[in-house]
Amino acid sequence: MTEFRLDPKLAADTFAVKSMDSCELLLANDKRWPWLILVPRMEDAVEWHELFTDQRQDIDLEIANSASVLKAITGCEKVNIASLGNMVRQLHIHVVARSNGDPNWPGPVWGYGEGAPYDPATADKLVQNLQNAL
Amino acid sequence: MTEFRLDPKLAADTFAVKSMDSCELLLANDKRWPWLILVPRMEDAVEWHELFTDQRQDIDLEIANSASVLKAITGCEKVNIASLGNMVRQLHIHVVARSNGDPNWPGPVWGYGEGAPYDPATADKLVQNLQNAL
Repeated sequence: MTEFRLDPKLAADTFAVKSMDSCELLLANDKRWPWLILVPRMEDAVEWHELFTDQRQDIDLEIANSASVLKAITGCEKVNIASLGNMVRQLHIHVVARSNGDPNWPGPVWGYGEGAPYDPATADKLVQNLQNAL
Repeated sequence: MTEFRLDPKLAADTFAVKSMDSCELLLANDKRWPWLILVPRMEDAVEWHELFTDQRQDIDLEIANSASVLKAITGCEKVNIASLGNMVRQLHIHVVARSNGDPNWPGPVWGYGEGAPYDPATADKLVQNLQNAL
């Protein structure tokens, strides 16, 4: 059994929200969009389809719960869910709150422009709101 | 019980590959990337997290199977899986074969440049390969 270590780039670009049963829940430090990232605590997981079915089911419960909470908190128009991994191979799932008029709507968030870090108080408040709702 | 109808834009931009138990499996008519789209046969489904758990589990089996087959057939470097729906609200899941050096790698496929339609023989062959592998 190997040890799970959060990818350094994911760690650097996010705030910790919650350790869930299967995943670390993170908030991307980019105020352009409320943007959650779930990282399953599995060493060397890369491709979604290479997980066992019960692993996918456990993780998906947390994806769906996170998406539901994100939509309720933000009132967004559409939740975007994605597992890409072209830049960071450690398996992680994006859950992003999107609305008409946000930066690059209706295009994707990935690779668009420069990140806009939160001020600390705003990030703290959003993290607390997420923790309270989860 | 209402009738499932494939969104006209999804129908126009794809080839039919297979009717699976839960989803219509489509091939996007864009030869830049081998790109599958799964559309659950559920009227009015929009957000992944609003489905019942058993519905998500049934669909996810087909997502994982499609991703596995796509990676095997294409030998791609990374599979990208996403449910976005910013442009077409009918719930659909993208499963895209990505490799270093493909158009816009490592950025996303959505909203990038203009689609490049297949010639009919190439599309037929890819559809047949997919059907044989599924």
